[in-house]
Amino acid sequence: MIFSYSDLSVFTYNIFKAIGCSDEHATIATNALLAADIRGIDSHGVARLSGYVRLWKAKRMNANPDIKIVHETPSTAVVDGDSGLGLVVAPFAMQVAISKARNVGTGWVSVRNSNHFGIAGYHAMMALEHDMIGMAMTNASALVAPTFSVERMLGTNPIAVAIPANKQPPFVADFATTTAANGKLEILQRKNEDAPLGWVQDKDGNVSTNANVLKQGGALLPLGSDREHGSHKGYALGSIVDIFSAVLSGASYGPWAPPFPAYVPVPENMPGKGLGHFFGAMRIDAFRSADEFKQHMDNWITRFRNAKPAKGYDKVLIPGDPEREMEAVRMKEGIPIIDAVVEDLKSVGEKLGVKFISSEEG
Amino acid sequence: MIFSYSDLSVFTYNIFKAIGCSDEHATIATNALLAADIRGIDSHGVARLSGYVRLWKAKRMNANPDIKIVHETPSTAVVDGDSGLGLVVAPFAMQVAISKARNVGTGWVSVRNSNHFGIAGYHAMMALEHDMIGMAMTNASALVAPTFSVERMLGTNPIAVAIPANKQPPFVADFATTTAANGKLEILQRKNEDAPLGWVQDKDGNVSTNANVLKQGGALLPLGSDREHGSHKGYALGSIVDIFSAVLSGASYGPWAPPFPAYVPVPENMPGKGLGHFFGAMRIDAFRSADEFKQHMDNWITRFRNAKPAKGYDKVLIPGDPEREMEAVRMKEGIPIIDAVVEDLKSVGEKLGVKFISSEEG
Repeated sequence: MIFSYSDLSVFTYNIFKAIGCSDEHATIATNALLAADIRGIDSHGVARLSGYVRLWKAKRMNANPDIKIVHETPSTAVVDGDSGLGLVVAPFAMQVAISKARNVGTGWVSVRNSNHFGIAGYHAMMALEHDMIGMAMTNASALVAPTFSVERMLGTNPIAVAIPANKQPPFVADFATTTAANGKLEILQRKNEDAPLGWVQDKDGNVSTNANVLKQGGALLPLGSDREHGSHKGYALGSIVDIFSAVLSGASYGPWAPPFPAYVPVPENMPGKGLGHFFGAMRIDAFRSADEFKQHMDNWITRFRNAKPAKGYDKVLIPGDPEREMEAVRMKEGIPIIDAVVEDLKSVGEKLGVKFISSEEG
Repeated sequence: MIFSYSDLSVFTYNIFKAIGCSDEHATIATNALLAADIRGIDSHGVARLSGYVRLWKAKRMNANPDIKIVHETPSTAVVDGDSGLGLVVAPFAMQVAISKARNVGTGWVSVRNSNHFGIAGYHAMMALEHDMIGMAMTNASALVAPTFSVERMLGTNPIAVAIPANKQPPFVADFATTTAANGKLEILQRKNEDAPLGWVQDKDGNVSTNANVLKQGGALLPLGSDREHGSHKGYALGSIVDIFSAVLSGASYGPWAPPFPAYVPVPENMPGKGLGHFFGAMRIDAFRSADEFKQHMDNWITRFRNAKPAKGYDKVLIPGDPEREMEAVRMKEGIPIIDAVVEDLKSVGEKLGVKFISSEEG
């Protein structure tokens, strides 16, 4: 079923209001959450709305957090999210990074005591309108086995980097540090299809094409898939995200990162508070004239877009192209939501007394 | 043949002196170059010494550079390397990052007009003794095809991140943003062996196991190898390194990055000066107490080292373990150098009137 962005937006806002978020926080959270749906990352948008509500019901998420800076220098800060929605904590922290960058050239903020923040790219992109480069990363509950291991030690720990250009659209990379994001595995599970070799391993560390293998003790693989193809690099990247987001801030790290599903108990002896994030903003003109830089970015982007394509491909893409194209389509034609998610949204709406919206084809 | 670190060091220092480097620069360059040999990254150490000399002979490297800051804010700087050895320019720039971090919490330095800087990890590790996290990256001449392309647009563009711990050794990640570093391909070429599928493609973009395929118009593949296994992520990472190192500083980027072999002409219409690097230093106590952080890093490292190994493996490694173990062995037992490199060193020594050293087994 297809819904308009604005209808989904109203429904989502009303859900956040119903669990006790302020007007301001409900708006911020809605914008952050729907950035996933509109950009085509369906696993991270309204499909997760009921999950956030369940975390709130389990008293693992605070709808009225007192988000604050607990430590700072001219270019850094640690923010405590007070168990708030990551969707609200992250934009707060990114604003801190941006204002520090305005003052001293760059700003770097590590966040503890937060929850899932939606898509990393949304937060990184907040820097663009200020002629800054934005960065965002987060740790997440452990689903990924390090190279040579069968134990899940890291989350899919995404990294986003947004870089402004002039006439060209910005460069926006946003990716899990695994070979495939968990959302892609979930799509295969629903379709009852196999996973390509190199995405997951079974509980003994054998290669597997079973898309359900995580339910049987298996694990996602770091970007690179196996040692011969560089999985130690994906493992290192995921570790760096974990350390910057959680060890630096005082959040819970590695296998102790708190899980998103409220039915999964939090790990015992957590070494820190909640999930962790890390944000960065770099003012372009702290390095060179922003105009000059953005003209060179146009040149960079144009040159890469015109790189000779391989047989069977029209063109080379720039990071951010697919999501931006999807956004243009979905703003016009609406956002398709699969039936299972529609039922889930209806059900969470009923429980909280929030009227559901009608689909554009309904 | 096996040589002691100190003998190799003396020879290398004398070569740098012979081409006109100052005592100070020859010492700095020697330490940076030999960090590769001692840590087991043989492709980036003395094996490249004659390459640096050829760049100098071709007047593409300046042995007496006036390295300087050309733009700065409290947390950032752009350094112009004046065509100097990257081995000397990089430590200068990393020191700038460290002193800015001392003042305002973090320091970020983008470098233009430089040359190859050896291994990224060496520069990142300079931050460790200051209780800082260090980062280093560099662009390089284009050998890598973006996802969906057959054209070489990016270098192997490595990223290094060094993070201090307390009783445990530091976490030191240092990796090319390709599936396999070019040095590994060179080893296969010498042995006349095939490359694993996923390392390279041929000139038409077909999968290939031919280790010599780069000489026939082929390309290295970004980390992830193909789209299904996340090569768009490796392509994005390599692009971020290129943009931070070269577009931000005013160096030459993408397919225009100047080549290391002096016999390869520099690209026409270069959009900037020389190679670019990017360095970062973050003071730990700009986020939380350094003691607390380092104790948590010990906990992080210990927990990951004890993650359940897969069948056939003893233990899970921490980034930096293999290189540190190699350093301990080579400091004691010496550094093995293959015959072709020994001949090359002898020959460059003869040309410059520098006496060669004797091997420990000679």
